[in-house]
Amino acid sequence: MLNNDLYNPIKSELREVEAFLKRFLLSHEGVIPTAVPRIFNAGGKRLRPALLLLSSRMCDYRGDKNVVLAAMVEMIHTASLIHDDVIDNDTLRRGVPTINATWGNNLSIVLGDYLYTLVFSTLADLGETDMLKYLAATTNKMARGDLVQHQTLLNMDITEERYLSINSDKTASLISCACRIGAMLGKSANGEVDALARYGQNLGMAFQITDDLLDLVAEEKVLGKPPGSDIRSGKLTLPLIHVMREADKKDKEWITTAVRSQKIDKPVFDKILAMATYYHGIEYSLQKAHEYGTACKKELKSLQSSDEHVSLERFVDYVVGRAG
Amino acid sequence: MLNNDLYNPIKSELREVEAFLKRFLLSHEGVIPTAVPRIFNAGGKRLRPALLLLSSRMCDYRGDKNVVLAAMVEMIHTASLIHDDVIDNDTLRRGVPTINATWGNNLSIVLGDYLYTLVFSTLADLGETDMLKYLAATTNKMARGDLVQHQTLLNMDITEERYLSINSDKTASLISCACRIGAMLGKSANGEVDALARYGQNLGMAFQITDDLLDLVAEEKVLGKPPGSDIRSGKLTLPLIHVMREADKKDKEWITTAVRSQKIDKPVFDKILAMATYYHGIEYSLQKAHEYGTACKKELKSLQSSDEHVSLERFVDYVVGRAG
Repeated sequence: MLNNDLYNPIKSELREVEAFLKRFLLSHEGVIPTAVPRIFNAGGKRLRPALLLLSSRMCDYRGDKNVVLAAMVEMIHTASLIHDDVIDNDTLRRGVPTINATWGNNLSIVLGDYLYTLVFSTLADLGETDMLKYLAATTNKMARGDLVQHQTLLNMDITEERYLSINSDKTASLISCACRIGAMLGKSANGEVDALARYGQNLGMAFQITDDLLDLVAEEKVLGKPPGSDIRSGKLTLPLIHVMREADKKDKEWITTAVRSQKIDKPVFDKILAMATYYHGIEYSLQKAHEYGTACKKELKSLQSSDEHVSLERFVDYVVGRAG
Repeated sequence: MLNNDLYNPIKSELREVEAFLKRFLLSHEGVIPTAVPRIFNAGGKRLRPALLLLSSRMCDYRGDKNVVLAAMVEMIHTASLIHDDVIDNDTLRRGVPTINATWGNNLSIVLGDYLYTLVFSTLADLGETDMLKYLAATTNKMARGDLVQHQTLLNMDITEERYLSINSDKTASLISCACRIGAMLGKSANGEVDALARYGQNLGMAFQITDDLLDLVAEEKVLGKPPGSDIRSGKLTLPLIHVMREADKKDKEWITTAVRSQKIDKPVFDKILAMATYYHGIEYSLQKAHEYGTACKKELKSLQSSDEHVSLERFVDYVVGRAG
């Protein structure tokens, strides 16, 4: 993925981010040097570091702080994935066993805590107070998103609005923050910072919607884990929220019973998927992702053209296009 | 406990801390207003807020920032307890069901993350950069302590040095930080800040040693949960580290087999306890706790006498005296 020419304008910085992450964590003790490279090397898209680097270069930043900050943003993302995998009881991520699958839930909990606090401690040491402020507020939003999501599990009446607000907290906030931090490093006027932050916010929304859609429609070999993990854990995402709005009484009751039973085998999953198609839930999600993609591009229109600008625009197509 | 006259010099501030914590969390959504007061109200000693308040007043601080900072320190402590209870699979704390026992492990993980990030985000918003720096480094030490401890489970050769270093990271660091922050608020010279930080460090060491000792020797009604949870989870604490140094080959092998079997019923536990007595492991731990207590009092000698000074001195006796 990192060979994609999307990354061309920031290829060397991104390599430095990789090197920094490795160096930074290899110097730690115990299981960390063994466990963390597994996550860091498992074919991650480096979406957040890439957006931070592109934003900083687009705003004429020429220093080297962007590399450290991009690494910190990726580390927060990694910490959140480690805790998420425990919560969702996921044993595979991108085709590779998760930390909890190999080293257990307890190690995953303390390792996640360790990485979160390492980021705050590192940023405080570097005196990056403004960046720390945004990242602290963002990680708190992410945790709030997870908390609210946890409390809406098995809730069959969850509204689209609630679903979008959870996605905004748990996913879009960090992607938006990465763009904001990049822009803040450069000589950008406030207008540019806000435009890039809004670009990231909309991109994050599109990203989570397509991610949720892929969990329903993609094949295991594409997904790197079996599909349907959301619905099996009682998480209703946009296609099925749409189905619950549109379906007739009988179908609604059937889905409700299936989800609440928490026993979703292959035939049940296939029937849920068929309903999502029949009631246009998949189509509706795709359309929503496209709308957020359009909003991203609108934000970019106010910004000067450059190689980075081209990459940011193509990132939108990549994110929205993932789910077809 | 809070009625103890130890708290006299800071009684009104401590009430403000309680009120602040409640107000702060009741304004949040979902399960938080229900779940967190349970931990906050469950007869906690408020050791860390009390030490912060006493240190600040002893250093002539007369503002009101100490209340917010004391609340933040207690919130970090609470977040760490919530994650610890998941890791140790504890279902009771001070006689009350834990968050994980009532709301499950997943909620506990996200709630802990939420509280940690809430503290950093709040301190960043308040512009308390210096305090944030110390607290971020401290929470990272705490996580490192948990991480290393997790990796030494079932290790029967753990040295006293390693055990003390884990305790320093996971427990003494936050207690020391509370004293340091209190002193930093006041008009204290660097010497006073460092003396109070060392006082807290030694108090924290004494505290964890007596805590570990109580887990072995105290009765359930005193402990608020069944004794022996450390040894059942494969955690070797000071009395048994001493036994493993002193015991003959046959007894060492018996303990090793018992701990590694992870099936420690009442007769096995009673035999372990008898060995800890026979090989003077309990005596040794008490002596170590006393040594740290003496080190605390030595630090206090350099500081001016006051009501707060008297309380800090009596806190040492309380902490060391808990285990008899």
